Amino acid sequence: MRFSVGCEIQYDVSEETTLILNVEAQHGEGQEVLDEQFSISSGVPAESHIVPETGNRYRRLKLNAGQHLISYSATVETRPYFGDPALIPQVPIAELPFEVITHLSPSRYCQSDKLGRFAWRQFGNANGYETVTAICNWIYENVDYLEGSSDGSTSAYDTFTLRAGVCRDFAHLGITFARALGIPARFVSAYAYDLTPQDFHAVFEAYLDGRWYLFDATRRCPIDGLVRIAIGRDAADSAFATYFGQLGGPAALVRVERLDSQPGTDWTVAAVSLSSP
Amino acid sequence: MRFSVGCEIQYDVSEETTLILNVEAQHGEGQEVLDEQFSISSGVPAESHIVPETGNRYRRLKLNAGQHLISYSATVETRPYFGDPALIPQVPIAELPFEVITHLSPSRYCQSDKLGRFAWRQFGNANGYETVTAICNWIYENVDYLEGSSDGSTSAYDTFTLRAGVCRDFAHLGITFARALGIPARFVSAYAYDLTPQDFHAVFEAYLDGRWYLFDATRRCPIDGLVRIAIGRDAADSAFATYFGQLGGPAALVRVERLDSQPGTDWTVAAVSLSSP
Amino acid sequence: MRFSVGCEIQYDVSEETTLILNVEAQHGEGQEVLDEQFSISSGVPAESHIVPETGNRYRRLKLNAGQHLISYSATVETRPYFGDPALIPQVPIAELPFEVITHLSPSRYCQSDKLGRFAWRQFGNANGYETVTAICNWIYENVDYLEGSSDGSTSAYDTFTLRAGVCRDFAHLGITFARALGIPARFVSAYAYDLTPQDFHAVFEAYLDGRWYLFDATRRCPIDGLVRIAIGRDAADSAFATYFGQLGGPAALVRVERLDSQPGTDWTVAAVSLSSP
Amino acid sequence: MRFSVGCEIQYDVSEETTLILNVEAQHGEGQEVLDEQFSISSGVPAESHIVPETGNRYRRLKLNAGQHLISYSATVETRPYFGDPALIPQVPIAELPFEVITHLSPSRYCQSDKLGRFAWRQFGNANGYETVTAICNWIYENVDYLEGSSDGSTSAYDTFTLRAGVCRDFAHLGITFARALGIPARFVSAYAYDLTPQDFHAVFEAYLDGRWYLFDATRRCPIDGLVRIAIGRDAADSAFATYFGQLGGPAALVRVERLDSQPGTDWTVAAVSLSSP
Repeated sequence: MRFSVGCEIQYDVSEETTLILNVEAQHGEGQEVLDEQFSISSGVPAESHIVPETGNRYRRLKLNAGQHLISYSATVETRPYFGDPALIPQVPIAELPFEVITHLSPSRYCQSDKLGRFAWRQFGNANGYETVTAICNWIYENVDYLEGSSDGSTSAYDTFTLRAGVCRDFAHLGITFARALGIPARFVSAYAYDLTPQDFHAVFEAYLDGRWYLFDATRRCPIDGLVRIAIGRDAADSAFATYFGQLGGPAALVRVERLDSQPGTDWTVAAVSLSSP
Repeated sequence: MRFSVGCEIQYDVSEETTLILNVEAQHGEGQEVLDEQFSISSGVPAESHIVPETGNRYRRLKLNAGQHLISYSATVETRPYFGDPALIPQVPIAELPFEVITHLSPSRYCQSDKLGRFAWRQFGNANGYETVTAICNWIYENVDYLEGSSDGSTSAYDTFTLRAGVCRDFAHLGITFARALGIPARFVSAYAYDLTPQDFHAVFEAYLDGRWYLFDATRRCPIDGLVRIAIGRDAADSAFATYFGQLGGPAALVRVERLDSQPGTDWTVAAVSLSSP
Repeated sequence: MRFSVGCEIQYDVSEETTLILNVEAQHGEGQEVLDEQFSISSGVPAESHIVPETGNRYRRLKLNAGQHLISYSATVETRPYFGDPALIPQVPIAELPFEVITHLSPSRYCQSDKLGRFAWRQFGNANGYETVTAICNWIYENVDYLEGSSDGSTSAYDTFTLRAGVCRDFAHLGITFARALGIPARFVSAYAYDLTPQDFHAVFEAYLDGRWYLFDATRRCPIDGLVRIAIGRDAADSAFATYFGQLGGPAALVRVERLDSQPGTDWTVAAVSLSSP
Repeated sequence: MRFSVGCEIQYDVSEETTLILNVEAQHGEGQEVLDEQFSISSGVPAESHIVPETGNRYRRLKLNAGQHLISYSATVETRPYFGDPALIPQVPIAELPFEVITHLSPSRYCQSDKLGRFAWRQFGNANGYETVTAICNWIYENVDYLEGSSDGSTSAYDTFTLRAGVCRDFAHLGITFARALGIPARFVSAYAYDLTPQDFHAVFEAYLDGRWYLFDATRRCPIDGLVRIAIGRDAADSAFATYFGQLGGPAALVRVERLDSQPGTDWTVAAVSLSSP
């Protein structure tokens, strides 16, 4: 599938600020960036870096006082792998690749060490893909999607109790349950096709049968319409922007369009992965 | 400095359990393993893995029901870099290596996003090495070292309020303050010379002037008598053992001896690093 | 019903300590103390006080260093009011007695302000006695009764997430849900007939149809076999002992026997109240 | 001192709502209401109740859909007791009146059970009035007064860590430290003279030398310019308004004027109490 994605972010900087951006689409086997443009109105240099282990792409900018408009646009071809949900088993801990095992550890927003008893009781009888589907169904049915109900310090522990949140909270809770059950899981920030209102989106991936499969407990957009930006343990290391200084809350405009007319991106029931095995 | 280190850990396994151990000394420029032995009484195979980015060394064992005695011993030569504390400035965010920046993010046990106001007020006037020294002094003076006062779910947020903890809590609090101030910091598990009673130890490293310097807010052993086992974001990914199954609380016996008689390891006032720049 | 109840508590005091005990059975319309004895081996005076609003009975003792054995025994006649669960509606806020309204407020261990969304979603369709029964059923089915799984700082917020606790945690969670739904609820400490192993017990009361009805989500003993000791907002003001000083963890021996042979105390399905309307 | 106090609160009610107001000045020995008026634009009846133990005055109103303007105004004569801070000792637990002891218990927003270690270390060497002054000084110096930094779920535990809050958070933290040190303390909502901007205010009282003395860690208005509305364990049972239904966030206008011209109300250094001994 081919998408045109992009964003415009405006910053009002009051004193020199270092900004680290993570808005560019990942390159990889399941997702190819055909062309892209990154620009900043003030013309300051934007140092770029790709993390080898994750493929996350960072830009570091030193913004001086004043207004800065950052624009990014890209044409991205995704080649999702479609699996049969019924045929995707869980990988025993003893057989997990070592580099995947770290995604079983609790993290800032995903205290999987605290929700194990509930997770085993609620989801313990399912297996593999079915388990994570059950997790997503439970979240969708028990947590209200409610703008403004959470903030940057809200973790899965809070969301489980308060029962309200936004996409990042839904992803954190899904990750937490999966890890508690011995399924490696990680956070994914993405451009999402057919999301209303358009914005950066957050979903999660679970490691099953040798692949990272995408899951979205919000049911707000098709799972095969995602263009991945970053992967991480949770939102703490996958923010689209981090800054060190003083700046006015950014106004971000996000855009995702479908460029081809091939079938797909309409709520597939297949399991979807953008990672290589 | 040359050390003989080792541990013996006994497990009573009641049903098949996958155990992931992380007790072997790191190889690297600042620390060389001259010889070592790893054995398990039951003779089950122990798959081994070294994480390229961290140098952490894992063993994965599938233990069947019964008793298992694991023994590790090594002769390790450390070649600490000694710096002058007065000449170790902080690295501006704009100049930090990208791979180091991730150690500014909050993590499971180090909610640096919540303690920023206190950290800036308390330590905001210091700079570089002096800042982290001030952090360690504050922790030593304000937190009681008290066995049994914390458990596996205790985070820096709790320790800051409860004012009691053990070595891992002291390390978590130090990491949290450093990150809140824009200084990358990470968790270090180690064999520690001259620690009484002998046990695995936890300290932390802060990234200053292009190196990771070691800090120990507990003041329980000399900072240049450490042999590093693992580095990580916090205890969540640096545990000496993680298991998935049923087993009896391990009895661990840890041993650290000095083999050479050269000066050092007696409470140096120098800044100490075991990492390459 | 007639019960013989009592307790023996031994304290090893290392320095002068003020102890406030709350172990004596309440006097009142639904529960009459026929005879009772309170003694302390060291013979120190035990100042006594009854709180007018609650009927709670306190003893204050100034214990000097040494061993102290406290004994209490009483013969108590309870005259429970039995109501028909199907005929016990909720009282609208607009009609609640003012002195009852305070039991809608969140308290130390019952953060009803945080669990409202869940409570309404889960129990919002029931009414009156049926609502609180649904609450108790849910707790029984979803929380594991597990000695040692909680401590003095565990609140309903934690229990809801961790899904394990003891009688006081079960009571706190029940109170929290009830308050969140606009049903006044309070904590009750009690002697409980047929509880194994014998110990002080904790249940809760909800205010319905003009009375305080007893509820016990643990299902560990018959609800009409209770002798009330104290009522309060939660365990923070209903502890059986509070001390200010240094003393060795008390060893308590609790005893409850049935003295009459009339029917009852065998798991009634009626609604039970020991309060006057 | 004589004050004219009052408030106007406007509610936009979308469905029938029961409102419980607590905005009327307390009657008592230290504070006399000379005249007062309570009215509601829609003319609905306002049932009134005075709690015997506290003197708190409640109004219960059943508001139907529509707009309601509530007005209260009163002329109040306060007769503060002025004590000499140097001569106000702490009351030993063994001598506290029983009805005061309950104010040593932790409550929803004042987890005194968790901050004891810090409190003893920081304030443990002071005694009596001096202790509570030290508490207030510490709060003033270490916590930023910052509108919008806290919300209805913020407790003393959070404020201690986050180091920012508003008047109710300052009061909660003061109460928490006092209780942790064995000094009974309670929450006070009040009309406050010379507060800018004018609003309902929250302070706390500590029980010392047989009286409840007023303390305000915010230093935002004179302590002898207060007219007490309610006392309680913490904000959970001292809110100026509680409602059960749907209504638009109230717009409240508070007014406090000095009517006499006698000296006082200008930052006395005396200890001030409005309670009878």
